[in-house]
Amino acid sequence: MRPWCCHFVMADTGWPGCATSLKGVILDMCGVLYDSGEGDGVAIPGSIEAVKKLKASDLQLRFCTNETQAAREKFVATLQRLGFDILVSEVFSPAPAAVAVLQERGLRPHLLVSDGLLPEFDSVDKTNPNCVVIGDAAEQFTYQNLNDAFRVLTGLEKPVLFSLGQGKYYKETDGLKLDVGAYMKALEYACDLKAEVVGKPSATFFQSVLNDMGLQPHEVLMIGDDLVNDVGGAQHCGMKGIQVRTGKYRPSDERHSTVTADGTVDDLAQAVDTLLNQRL
Amino acid sequence: MRPWCCHFVMADTGWPGCATSLKGVILDMCGVLYDSGEGDGVAIPGSIEAVKKLKASDLQLRFCTNETQAAREKFVATLQRLGFDILVSEVFSPAPAAVAVLQERGLRPHLLVSDGLLPEFDSVDKTNPNCVVIGDAAEQFTYQNLNDAFRVLTGLEKPVLFSLGQGKYYKETDGLKLDVGAYMKALEYACDLKAEVVGKPSATFFQSVLNDMGLQPHEVLMIGDDLVNDVGGAQHCGMKGIQVRTGKYRPSDERHSTVTADGTVDDLAQAVDTLLNQRL
Repeated sequence: MRPWCCHFVMADTGWPGCATSLKGVILDMCGVLYDSGEGDGVAIPGSIEAVKKLKASDLQLRFCTNETQAAREKFVATLQRLGFDILVSEVFSPAPAAVAVLQERGLRPHLLVSDGLLPEFDSVDKTNPNCVVIGDAAEQFTYQNLNDAFRVLTGLEKPVLFSLGQGKYYKETDGLKLDVGAYMKALEYACDLKAEVVGKPSATFFQSVLNDMGLQPHEVLMIGDDLVNDVGGAQHCGMKGIQVRTGKYRPSDERHSTVTADGTVDDLAQAVDTLLNQRL
Repeated sequence: MRPWCCHFVMADTGWPGCATSLKGVILDMCGVLYDSGEGDGVAIPGSIEAVKKLKASDLQLRFCTNETQAAREKFVATLQRLGFDILVSEVFSPAPAAVAVLQERGLRPHLLVSDGLLPEFDSVDKTNPNCVVIGDAAEQFTYQNLNDAFRVLTGLEKPVLFSLGQGKYYKETDGLKLDVGAYMKALEYACDLKAEVVGKPSATFFQSVLNDMGLQPHEVLMIGDDLVNDVGGAQHCGMKGIQVRTGKYRPSDERHSTVTADGTVDDLAQAVDTLLNQRL
């Protein structure tokens, strides 16, 4: 077995000492379960088995992703094809959360999202838009499309921008790619406004997952590859947050100025084995 | 003659009271002389005549632009075709300033600029890049191109990003368009760095124009349509700054939280007539 960093082996209230009192686990998806990329992407070694072990345990399990390139049904199907035992009902993503906010506030969005995400907004009135929703539009982040969103915002008396996550970048099989957060910042600067983030690290978003589990924050552990949005966001809600050294992990994360993970593990397989061993 | 706003009619040390002590004028180009757009764009009414009047006066005249879509020779030729009496030697723009910085610091750029600007960098070694230069790439701000620049930066131990200006947007004949500053912010956020701005509002850039004129800041007036980069930048150097209500001007500029123009005029023609009348 690989050695643990001393800073969390020594702390019983921390990870993995906290394992015995846990009742639930939330897993990030991209970069923890799989690396996205051409076709379906590829499963990260050991992660399919790790999900199986968690499901066979007495822990509740949910998946919490900022994935906004495809509608939930579609990317869950992709993960099922890769071999993961995952149901749509177990997965929380920003688009359905955004739809709820739009309907609650009577807002009609101009959408700057990938074509794959559009079905999530089928039920939403998009005529005469009075806000903008930006997701990970990837190749559809053209100059023209960003200008269109910019012009909608500058034309509004009270411009409102929703961003489906605020990630800086993510890893695909062929390298790092810019995430929605970079384009959110571009529009924030051009329009002199602050976006409302829907998805991780929003506390509202994490709380909706906890509500679904019926658990308190201290009973739940978040495992992700994004130090700020997964680990920091979960910690901000009172959960423990573990970072995996897969996906977008970079060694500099372990010297981050504001966020310190409760533990850092090589991959999901190592996290789950340690967690379940502690509970024996 | 149209009325002046009271806040500068009353102040003798301000505009237009300062006109008698002036020895030089610096003009922004796009939005002051012309609106860019399809073909050569269009001259703003009265501006061709206003430049003629300034050239016939005893004031020194320079042009200072953050234009980075085309090489200097090319966009000066465009303005000449529109009818302006302008020479390349009178025009200061960010690309030649950036080339000087790159050569001084021995840096080899990865360029994220429009094809039209590439000739400005002909003399620069671009192999094995150790920095990124971003300009107003417009349609070439594709997801792929922004990712390429992002990957160069994340691959460097000490990433350096030069931005040719930091404008938020500009006005073309068919509407407002995002400027380089928005994309600079996207890369700053994604890479956790601060760009070095070459061009307005950099004090170094304005100082190079003053040096060329052989004048002190208090002897020179800047006229522009960009409150922050033209007016604020000039004021930061000790010059007076006047904003025209053409180009990217928006009424909210007159209530800006940090920058207050020394005067606001309808257009360049009005600014020049007032200036020269005061000197009679």
